[in-house]
Amino acid sequence: MNTFDPMYYTNYWNQLNKANALLQRTYPLQIFQESRSQPPLTFVLIHGSWADGSFWDGIADELRKRGSTVYTPTLAGHGKVNEKNVTHAQITKSVVDFILQRNLHQIVLVGHSFGGSVIQKVAEQIPDRIKRLVFWNAFVLRDGESLADQFPPSTQEFLLGLAQQSDNNTILLPFPFFRETFANLADLPLASKLYHEISPEPAGPLTEKLDLKRFYQLTIPKSYINLMEDTATPPGEEYGWHPHLSSRLGVYRLIQGHGDHFSTARTEPRMIADLIIKAGRD
Amino acid sequence: MNTFDPMYYTNYWNQLNKANALLQRTYPLQIFQESRSQPPLTFVLIHGSWADGSFWDGIADELRKRGSTVYTPTLAGHGKVNEKNVTHAQITKSVVDFILQRNLHQIVLVGHSFGGSVIQKVAEQIPDRIKRLVFWNAFVLRDGESLADQFPPSTQEFLLGLAQQSDNNTILLPFPFFRETFANLADLPLASKLYHEISPEPAGPLTEKLDLKRFYQLTIPKSYINLMEDTATPPGEEYGWHPHLSSRLGVYRLIQGHGDHFSTARTEPRMIADLIIKAGRD
Amino acid sequence: MNTFDPMYYTNYWNQLNKANALLQRTYPLQIFQESRSQPPLTFVLIHGSWADGSFWDGIADELRKRGSTVYTPTLAGHGKVNEKNVTHAQITKSVVDFILQRNLHQIVLVGHSFGGSVIQKVAEQIPDRIKRLVFWNAFVLRDGESLADQFPPSTQEFLLGLAQQSDNNTILLPFPFFRETFANLADLPLASKLYHEISPEPAGPLTEKLDLKRFYQLTIPKSYINLMEDTATPPGEEYGWHPHLSSRLGVYRLIQGHGDHFSTARTEPRMIADLIIKAGRD
Repeated sequence: MNTFDPMYYTNYWNQLNKANALLQRTYPLQIFQESRSQPPLTFVLIHGSWADGSFWDGIADELRKRGSTVYTPTLAGHGKVNEKNVTHAQITKSVVDFILQRNLHQIVLVGHSFGGSVIQKVAEQIPDRIKRLVFWNAFVLRDGESLADQFPPSTQEFLLGLAQQSDNNTILLPFPFFRETFANLADLPLASKLYHEISPEPAGPLTEKLDLKRFYQLTIPKSYINLMEDTATPPGEEYGWHPHLSSRLGVYRLIQGHGDHFSTARTEPRMIADLIIKAGRD
Repeated sequence: MNTFDPMYYTNYWNQLNKANALLQRTYPLQIFQESRSQPPLTFVLIHGSWADGSFWDGIADELRKRGSTVYTPTLAGHGKVNEKNVTHAQITKSVVDFILQRNLHQIVLVGHSFGGSVIQKVAEQIPDRIKRLVFWNAFVLRDGESLADQFPPSTQEFLLGLAQQSDNNTILLPFPFFRETFANLADLPLASKLYHEISPEPAGPLTEKLDLKRFYQLTIPKSYINLMEDTATPPGEEYGWHPHLSSRLGVYRLIQGHGDHFSTARTEPRMIADLIIKAGRD
Repeated sequence: MNTFDPMYYTNYWNQLNKANALLQRTYPLQIFQESRSQPPLTFVLIHGSWADGSFWDGIADELRKRGSTVYTPTLAGHGKVNEKNVTHAQITKSVVDFILQRNLHQIVLVGHSFGGSVIQKVAEQIPDRIKRLVFWNAFVLRDGESLADQFPPSTQEFLLGLAQQSDNNTILLPFPFFRETFANLADLPLASKLYHEISPEPAGPLTEKLDLKRFYQLTIPKSYINLMEDTATPPGEEYGWHPHLSSRLGVYRLIQGHGDHFSTARTEPRMIADLIIKAGRD
């Protein structure tokens, strides 16, 4: 059963059997008759390319202030490690292992950018532990596609060319490209600072075609956070984050704000935390 | 003459005869030399599906505070009535009758969601009483189309399937669908509260093909209010509110804000009233 | 070499030779270790159709308060002059001459609306004096296209019909059209005031096909400012400002805000100045 297929909701409806009684058991009246506070959430935040778990520092602090439990694992092959020769499956496994080792349940699993493709695969492996998937300007791959497939041919060539020039099949974006498309809202000092913090990105996973048949049978609720000035993919109907990539989720909850791909996480962690709460809550 | 056709404006221009003198008679200098206040407006606010006149309560209060006169009729077959077996023509007639009985003139007629198709038909019948049409995340049907035609085939099937499961050919959205696509910005208590307030929607009008030839010959000024997080129709070039549906109005005034389909009316009535004033004023 | 072609960035990268040392010479560490202030900028602001240099008054004041040097030339054939019979080349020359006479260098050249096509041609002639090009809801023409080509056929007919009705091949928009599509966010007094200030626009340049081969070989950095309620071109994938026209710039810096085509410059000059600084800085 595919969330693209609204019959999923018909079935849900059948289960509810049109009974307000049952509905009220599921969402009891007292929920909204009492306090407006919602129960605390457990977030696992998955960073994107060129980043590591520290990408989330300010945002995680803000989420904790709001009562949430927050984990920010660094993906295999990312951060200040020497071993950059990783597969998409190894990256996925590093997240699954992280969750299993801590025996986490009822997770709101958030993926930023490349992290979108990671949470798609993690969800296939441990769906019962995940309460909701949140994609934040994140890739949503169709079954059989690669990350590279999400870009125009010239950009694919550009990225793979950068990998070939490296010693270890990694990609480091040229500063001018990073500055204009990842940190467009930042001033130069901040853009430079962010650039000096990023790590070369393993190029292997870029061209891996992913089997995502199981993902499109899952019925986990999904949200998409779109920052409207994020131009890390070319804006528009052909390659843009929203609604082009977001719509692949079928029925999803849309949350929007203003921001770019990399600098707003640093300059407005509180605002981003608010969006993540809105996207992640029941 | 069709507002799609800019020759309408050429003709308008011909009437003005390029005369500043005449222009200033129409929009006299004193208008902007004196106070910046604009004359009070008379609004007739038309709710959408699953709602009734009480949808507008907070917004109407805010509009009245600003000096406007406001009417919020409940459409035939809507609200807490037993008779849900209505046609689109009966719904239209209930609004026309409401306006004629009160002998209202110079109306700013606002339609939300399904209400868009209603104000299209009302405008055909009493154009001389309407000063401006305002569509707020509202359907703008092309001549010969039905409401159902505005959705992807799978959603049509979903909605009609729900109607078939009912006792009286009405549709009640499953809560998860309502929560994600109509109240995406709300917390769960508010989403639940809103859900418990809605009424089953008559399904008959959904598939009625409407004759709208006269609508597309009217020269009443038009506005479109777009809340950017409204996902009650699938976002994008194929089914989205704006610019997909809005552009059918030809030349129109665009007003935008942030909000979703159902909950922002409740949480930010003052902001919505501001948008309606901007959309409705001369 | 074309900025559409990301190989431009590969070459840039080759020049940098992957050397952090060189990168830090280009963007020295001290830039972000010291104050967050950026060096003052020199702006040349190019107005659009129906306007003159005074369009920028409030914005220029705000930019000067922030330490920038600002020039606001009036294009040939614009403002309160009698000679409206100008070509696109004469308009371009009036800007080039303005810059050469003052011997300006390291310019941030900003074009609004029609001014976009002007800064494209100015950049071809004096690329070495331009540090960055900023397009603000501005036309970005493809090689061989005219301004008229950017509009639907019916609008082209409308505009050319207005020119034919004039004594001197100029276009003055009918007030209702101006009010709805150029000043949609303004109240009537302000919309009227703005309308009384505009001048008839020379129609000749509208249909001139421009040779822009050199423009698409330039490597000057580019930004695009998009006000999201600007409907001076029909919103959407076919004619809209962003991403339809903006994407022709290849890799560019996107800055967005809320506003319309003509009135926000008057009502929120400080906000617009902020956007221009964000778009123009290194």
